[in-house]
Amino acid sequence: MIMPDNSKTIFISPQQMKSEFVRILKNLGFTNEKAEKCAEIFTINSLEGVYSHGVNRFPRFVKNTKDGYVVPDAIPTLIQQTGSLEQWNGNLGPGPLNASFATDRSVEIAQKNGIGLVALANTNHWMRAGTYGWQAARKGFVFICWTNTCQNMPTWGAKDPRLGNNPFVIAVPYKNEAIVLDFAMSQFSYGKMETFRNEGKQLPFPGGFNQDSELTTDPAAILETWRVLPVGYWKGAGLSLLLDIMATILSGGLSTHQIESCTSEYGVSQIFIAINIKNLQNFPAIDNSIQMIIEDLQDSIPENDSTRIRYPGESVLKIKELNLKKGIPVDKNIWEGILAL
Amino acid sequence: MIMPDNSKTIFISPQQMKSEFVRILKNLGFTNEKAEKCAEIFTINSLEGVYSHGVNRFPRFVKNTKDGYVVPDAIPTLIQQTGSLEQWNGNLGPGPLNASFATDRSVEIAQKNGIGLVALANTNHWMRAGTYGWQAARKGFVFICWTNTCQNMPTWGAKDPRLGNNPFVIAVPYKNEAIVLDFAMSQFSYGKMETFRNEGKQLPFPGGFNQDSELTTDPAAILETWRVLPVGYWKGAGLSLLLDIMATILSGGLSTHQIESCTSEYGVSQIFIAINIKNLQNFPAIDNSIQMIIEDLQDSIPENDSTRIRYPGESVLKIKELNLKKGIPVDKNIWEGILAL
Repeated sequence: MIMPDNSKTIFISPQQMKSEFVRILKNLGFTNEKAEKCAEIFTINSLEGVYSHGVNRFPRFVKNTKDGYVVPDAIPTLIQQTGSLEQWNGNLGPGPLNASFATDRSVEIAQKNGIGLVALANTNHWMRAGTYGWQAARKGFVFICWTNTCQNMPTWGAKDPRLGNNPFVIAVPYKNEAIVLDFAMSQFSYGKMETFRNEGKQLPFPGGFNQDSELTTDPAAILETWRVLPVGYWKGAGLSLLLDIMATILSGGLSTHQIESCTSEYGVSQIFIAINIKNLQNFPAIDNSIQMIIEDLQDSIPENDSTRIRYPGESVLKIKELNLKKGIPVDKNIWEGILAL
Repeated sequence: MIMPDNSKTIFISPQQMKSEFVRILKNLGFTNEKAEKCAEIFTINSLEGVYSHGVNRFPRFVKNTKDGYVVPDAIPTLIQQTGSLEQWNGNLGPGPLNASFATDRSVEIAQKNGIGLVALANTNHWMRAGTYGWQAARKGFVFICWTNTCQNMPTWGAKDPRLGNNPFVIAVPYKNEAIVLDFAMSQFSYGKMETFRNEGKQLPFPGGFNQDSELTTDPAAILETWRVLPVGYWKGAGLSLLLDIMATILSGGLSTHQIESCTSEYGVSQIFIAINIKNLQNFPAIDNSIQMIIEDLQDSIPENDSTRIRYPGESVLKIKELNLKKGIPVDKNIWEGILAL
């Protein structure tokens, strides 16, 4: 949710953004249908404020496709079905399309069996993790998903990156929308640290270690060492490891340590778990039950007058509303680069 | 894993510890079979180094039973089965017995359907979360479980505790044992902060806020405000909230904000998810695949010569081995209190 520098921000309507994306994707060999769907995901990610995995990331997605890491016409194929668990091979197809497919497939299994788990091997970067949480929860399903990544974070007590930041999502339906928790296992993303560095700012909390193995709020120092801090120190390091192990063994795909480079980052493994709550005896009471939890949370005593107590995903709907009115903010240079693709 | 102060530590054999627990539980109205099973869980928790939820907690468990919060002869009853998802009512039975039952039940469902989810309402504190991870993973299942708790942690930006620390477990089978991640959503437990305070020590990292809303490593200051720090700041607060929402709506039980007091902490909601990997085509390669991940992790460059890179649960087996040889270390006063029960 890094907002572009205002001085060179322009505003693009979702329709215009999507149609540019469609044009470019079709030139890359995407079918009409796939170009539409993929462009829509990149546009909605931007509309909902996750520019880093929407419009700002689109040029890199195009490059990875041109370089052959993303195969435009590949689709997932079933490896194995055993009960409510399915293994699929993503065949290095476009990450967002593969992930969206796997989400729908887990929902279908859950519709029938109460729970569905799809383990997807050999796929590509899915862009914004939360996308799939919103997708499943808006259909009324409780949903958990995660991906492994390249090695971009040291484990606890170590200097070199052996773990991934492995973004993780939990989503529940709420008032015809959703509550969506979407977080990576590093305290701050590299993108966020770069923004802070470029603006000459310190991080609000320590985000990693400097050359002297001291925790620091200086983004430049962390970007030198690549020693980003796992969420909750040893706890987030452990969670990252277990998410990678589960993604690897359940999908039969690559583990973080086998994913070759963080530049192309292809061949990742992902997990999608949908849970069907519609048949539960307490289903009619669920929305109200969540509302009571949220209201209690919002009754918290704020740290100070300017603090707003939020639930995960709450701001997404507000940003979307604003961007629908004003257009999606994009850095002028980035947009011109996209127009030239 | 707080070790008692050495000056007054005695060492008790697991056999002796268990037989004392059995004696006391039978006096409380536990049947032979239940007393044996419950005593075994408390003893193994202690043997494996989690004294805070083993022998040190036993007197409080006895008190909660005497006070009527734990019903010795209550057993879980099925509320509803829908596909691979089952809701059970714990009927306020002994937390460790209910949780152990729910673990086995989720494994049974997974054995048949690939995945099993048991949502348990109206149960009691399960003591050590990891217990159930070891239980399922030692049977060869991938396993995830969590519990909600009373309100013991403020959300991000708030001063008063509205969230639970909601312990969360992921376990995978590994070399006839397991890798078990077991962590609560607060950076440090109250028990650990009390130990640091009593020993006049500072926490190794900020663990909460002082009266002036500043992050601090002073355990005494945090124990005054009760403003413990969520793991990863806003991220752990979000994870705590979503774990509570899922436990509540899937079980139809109480949410954290409905759990009356942190002293008795009864009527909690818990989730148990087992995944059957034995039918996967890649099952024969799984142990080796995990070994490669662990070996890569252990190849990390340590921060300094004294740093040991560990995976979650690794130290449990070492402590167990040591305690089997030397006996389980117990504070003399605590043990005398137990003998007098």
